[in-house]
Amino acid sequence: MALQAAGRQSLVDTVVDALRSQLTAGEWQVGARIPTEHALAEQLQVGRNTVREAVRVLVHAGMLRSRQGEGTFVVSTADPGDVMRGVQRAGIRDVLELRIALEAEAARLAALRHLPADLERMRAALDAQAELADPEGHPDADSLELYADHDIAFHKAVVEAAHNTALTATYGWFSSSVRESLVNYLGDRAMPKIVHGDHVAVLDAIAAGDPEAAQQAIREVLEKPKQALENLLAGD
Amino acid sequence: MALQAAGRQSLVDTVVDALRSQLTAGEWQVGARIPTEHALAEQLQVGRNTVREAVRVLVHAGMLRSRQGEGTFVVSTADPGDVMRGVQRAGIRDVLELRIALEAEAARLAALRHLPADLERMRAALDAQAELADPEGHPDADSLELYADHDIAFHKAVVEAAHNTALTATYGWFSSSVRESLVNYLGDRAMPKIVHGDHVAVLDAIAAGDPEAAQQAIREVLEKPKQALENLLAGD
Repeated sequence: MALQAAGRQSLVDTVVDALRSQLTAGEWQVGARIPTEHALAEQLQVGRNTVREAVRVLVHAGMLRSRQGEGTFVVSTADPGDVMRGVQRAGIRDVLELRIALEAEAARLAALRHLPADLERMRAALDAQAELADPEGHPDADSLELYADHDIAFHKAVVEAAHNTALTATYGWFSSSVRESLVNYLGDRAMPKIVHGDHVAVLDAIAAGDPEAAQQAIREVLEKPKQALENLLAGD
Repeated sequence: MALQAAGRQSLVDTVVDALRSQLTAGEWQVGARIPTEHALAEQLQVGRNTVREAVRVLVHAGMLRSRQGEGTFVVSTADPGDVMRGVQRAGIRDVLELRIALEAEAARLAALRHLPADLERMRAALDAQAELADPEGHPDADSLELYADHDIAFHKAVVEAAHNTALTATYGWFSSSVRESLVNYLGDRAMPKIVHGDHVAVLDAIAAGDPEAAQQAIREVLEKPKQALENLLAGD
């Protein structure tokens, strides 16, 4: 198979695509060593430099790992670009459901495993948020971004209080991408406001060490906007 | 700031690291346009080709997106390589908890939204798995890999039956990386076997449209190995 492309730049992209296809098709399993630069260059009929650049792209993407003197190994057969595009193509309802999945289980575990410092971080985020809200609980238009940041900080603190590396990493992966839609949400008066008391209930249940109450409390925080969205979509 | 590196190859890596640091530090927000190639080349005192290659790396990683004639925009400020390393560094217990989070919520939604084809895929995976097991429910040593693939196919079918793009994308992202540990698990007779009836209970609850029973059933499937691991770690 000889790969062709318009210029050197896009030839690297073509090789990246070829290698990625072999990975996502499962031709190389996780943990396996992929063929040498030399073998891949022969197979794809491109230069070794091009192969090296393409491999680097996939190392940065978290799909491959190079070990000095040992070769290059498969870390993951899922393409992070695809995953991120999948999450971004998903509607707000889908993203809220993903958040419910991760945060409800995290809150449950946080009730069992939190440290005092975890509670302090949650409390600090809620206090800072409360200062930005009017008596009705709405942030004013100028502080939407800051208010959103405190909200994100609270939910992140809940997830981190579960002390689970895999949950924290996965949550962090997509949470940065939802900030924009959160700011829009906060500015939309048709949406239910963030209720301080609902958040305090999460903190209290975690502090009390009650897993069931904790997961129920955070589920309520996130079900409200989900319900409002579904009503809007249903034309209520 | 002038970046320096041993050769051209690693200079691109250095620029990738510099841009990624600005992204993960939140200097550029999601949705924002980053400076032009020209401006970045000036700022970092490197050539435009080097900047272009570094940007391509981050586009493939799902952190940036280039729009012809408009510029390059921030898609995510989380580094997929870090996330994947976080999930891989996590112990099996952490990964099981992440699976419980995603699969319990997916099973709940699947009970409400499954299509007939979803149930057929779950049933086909369970039937194929049952054929590989001895009367005790253990797969024989030769078919561990195939057995693991049917198991992964069943759980993937449950997640996909939730018809949530964000859940499916996130689940797919790390599930390929757990196959190896699943095969090891299946070969370890100290671990509880995969019980066919437990899986059938998941399918039945989803088919019956019972969200609470569905999430409870899949939680039981995943809590058994988690409990066994915790007992082992506690020295039972």
